[in-house]
Amino acid sequence: MKNYVSIGLLGLGTVGSGVVQLINNHQEELVHQVGCEVRVKSVLVRDAEKERDIQIGHTFLTTNSDEVLQDPEIDIVIEVMGGVEEAREHIIQALEAKKHVVTANKDLIALYGPELQKKATENQCDLFYEASVAGGIPILRGLSDGLVSDRIQKLMGIVNGTTNYILTKMDEDGLSYETALKEAQDLGFAEADPTSDVEGLDAARKMAILARLAFFTNVELNDVEVSGISNVSVEDLNYGNKLGLTMKLIGLAHIDNQQLEVSVQPTFLSKSHPLASVKNEYNAIYVNGEAVGETMFYGPGAGSLPTATAVMSDVVAVMKNMRLGVNGKSVVAPRFESVLKSSDQRFGKYYFRLHLQDEVGAFSKITTLFNELGISFEKILQTPISKDELAEIIIVTHTVSLDSFQKALMKLRDLSVVKEVVSYYRVEGDGKK
Amino acid sequence: MKNYVSIGLLGLGTVGSGVVQLINNHQEELVHQVGCEVRVKSVLVRDAEKERDIQIGHTFLTTNSDEVLQDPEIDIVIEVMGGVEEAREHIIQALEAKKHVVTANKDLIALYGPELQKKATENQCDLFYEASVAGGIPILRGLSDGLVSDRIQKLMGIVNGTTNYILTKMDEDGLSYETALKEAQDLGFAEADPTSDVEGLDAARKMAILARLAFFTNVELNDVEVSGISNVSVEDLNYGNKLGLTMKLIGLAHIDNQQLEVSVQPTFLSKSHPLASVKNEYNAIYVNGEAVGETMFYGPGAGSLPTATAVMSDVVAVMKNMRLGVNGKSVVAPRFESVLKSSDQRFGKYYFRLHLQDEVGAFSKITTLFNELGISFEKILQTPISKDELAEIIIVTHTVSLDSFQKALMKLRDLSVVKEVVSYYRVEGDGKK
Repeated sequence: MKNYVSIGLLGLGTVGSGVVQLINNHQEELVHQVGCEVRVKSVLVRDAEKERDIQIGHTFLTTNSDEVLQDPEIDIVIEVMGGVEEAREHIIQALEAKKHVVTANKDLIALYGPELQKKATENQCDLFYEASVAGGIPILRGLSDGLVSDRIQKLMGIVNGTTNYILTKMDEDGLSYETALKEAQDLGFAEADPTSDVEGLDAARKMAILARLAFFTNVELNDVEVSGISNVSVEDLNYGNKLGLTMKLIGLAHIDNQQLEVSVQPTFLSKSHPLASVKNEYNAIYVNGEAVGETMFYGPGAGSLPTATAVMSDVVAVMKNMRLGVNGKSVVAPRFESVLKSSDQRFGKYYFRLHLQDEVGAFSKITTLFNELGISFEKILQTPISKDELAEIIIVTHTVSLDSFQKALMKLRDLSVVKEVVSYYRVEGDGKK
Repeated sequence: MKNYVSIGLLGLGTVGSGVVQLINNHQEELVHQVGCEVRVKSVLVRDAEKERDIQIGHTFLTTNSDEVLQDPEIDIVIEVMGGVEEAREHIIQALEAKKHVVTANKDLIALYGPELQKKATENQCDLFYEASVAGGIPILRGLSDGLVSDRIQKLMGIVNGTTNYILTKMDEDGLSYETALKEAQDLGFAEADPTSDVEGLDAARKMAILARLAFFTNVELNDVEVSGISNVSVEDLNYGNKLGLTMKLIGLAHIDNQQLEVSVQPTFLSKSHPLASVKNEYNAIYVNGEAVGETMFYGPGAGSLPTATAVMSDVVAVMKNMRLGVNGKSVVAPRFESVLKSSDQRFGKYYFRLHLQDEVGAFSKITTLFNELGISFEKILQTPISKDELAEIIIVTHTVSLDSFQKALMKLRDLSVVKEVVSYYRVEGDGKK
């Protein structure tokens, strides 16, 4: 038996390069932790001739996936190529060839996680994906090991760095959405096509993965309700500030009585909520457990070396299992079929911004409507009449059902004194019960 | 072989009761996670006849430690009795009887951790102590598993809830130290004799444990420099606020070139530092790793159920190891003898508050002195002359060595224009490099 572990890498982009760098630089620590060396034997790339910044030493670059996936010497395959279908096929091949797999691919795990996990178990292989959710933050092990004996009730995550950067710049520097997005693109925090980030799709994938682990359910990506930040205006952020609220793109996963809601939406947080102070490109996951109460995990949600750190924590876990001969046994199967809450079982506070006709009794018509629906106000902010003879009113409600909120929204739009429902957002308090 | 795991509990106080409650309430989850039931068979107490609030069912209460430690049926001993010498003897006995041990006892682990760990390894038993550092925050596993492939350079912790509560109340409500302490005592956040908390001793124990794990060194409790918060004044907190700084009792552990500093001291943090927003009785550990950059773990640092959650995460880890037959193998031995930095190798920024004689040229004498020592100023705040004809000046320096700081302090006290060096504190920036 060889006295080192052989790695095959699929992809040598940002994260792949970070993995190679970490393995090269931290060999001594790895040997100390797991008792043997780690070597990257070969890497699947699109172009083996391309010049690269990274030192790859004796590592073999190939464009033929079989040379990685069918190499009997390779123990662990690390998938950092991205994309879905090709990555999925490669991972299935690797598992069938009895290789352990570590992946950072959230799109893949969100879509095919349970299927791949099953395949891994059948082949007595490990399949780990710590890096798929929040880059360098060790949240998956935090949930599955640290909080193992607790019952997690609610997760709230800032799990997309691009949108958090944009919202921070809009909030702190008063930039418009477009300008903040442009700045994020210039700094490399946003892609040329930012759709997946700004429309909340990236965050939705991560929330599906988190909700599965936290609640032991088979949440599908389609179960996650999503809305993005592209319509958020600086005006709303300014009103939020006056009300002690900060806007974040929040992934919410909530369970009670084995009924679930999972969503991603721009949300106003009380400034005293631990997530409110998470700024710029940073991520954080706030966990509310029955016994532990509130905890939060904070850190970089992306980036070459942070993500590589999470990948390597999985590699070390695989290596420890290899030494102990216990791979493929750490699987936690779902316990529940996920049942989604209906709109009358989902509760929250809401922020409304309304333009009213400036006529006598306009505001009283609003309060009557809310009264009839049994919705009371936590805060009201009335601003001076604007140039168009319109009064602008901000209302933050007490907790109501989503059903009542939707009814209120519909009826508001029908009221003749309401010129426009300019915007509405969900509101979260300080996290205390 | 019996199809459940038997627990012996040492102590049935706050944490012990939490453990019993968690085991009773979460049996179903535990079975799902580890495949068998967990039963508390017997508990060592001081008084077996005392009336208790907690439901203990068929659990046997005894005042004879042998009935727990020598019971061949018991697999895992949980030590939550506190104190040092007696707990140490019990744990040694348990390990020699081949029982795995989980403890929440920071005093014990800070003093005797390495010795007990050695004893555990000799007996092929697990010894885990997640609950000893920060209650419900899964920080030890976060360091040893999540960040395993990284090289941790710096840890900063708010690891004592009592002092954080007191400082928060002083800062936000302008309470004096004495009033805030009284309030903390009334709410049960501080003990009748608060010395161990307010003088930083409790935090020092936790920092010793953290530094060992993070840096793979044999840090001793005596290596930790400690100062507490009992001399912190509201005036300094107010000046801090004007300078954008918040006071926290910070445990600092820093390594470079295998040279260490570990300290606990009241420290001014930039308000944009992630630790600055950790309020009231909450704890948080901020970790700076070479690859991952900044991460932070936040949560309740004490309390019955949060601490019990950490204890149970250890119990589940032991049970998983039992099922796999790999107990006692997860030990990471220290790699380095700890070498402490000398005062010219330790760097920081410092806040000084000085009372000067109100005479012409007084301030220029100060600047000349700092100039001569090569210390430059980041911020200066000069306040109007007070009733005693004294000028009050606040200086925040740029980064200097501890050596230079101490020289400056000595020379300031020798200057005739300096009536008094009222206070001085270490200052930390926003965490970015």
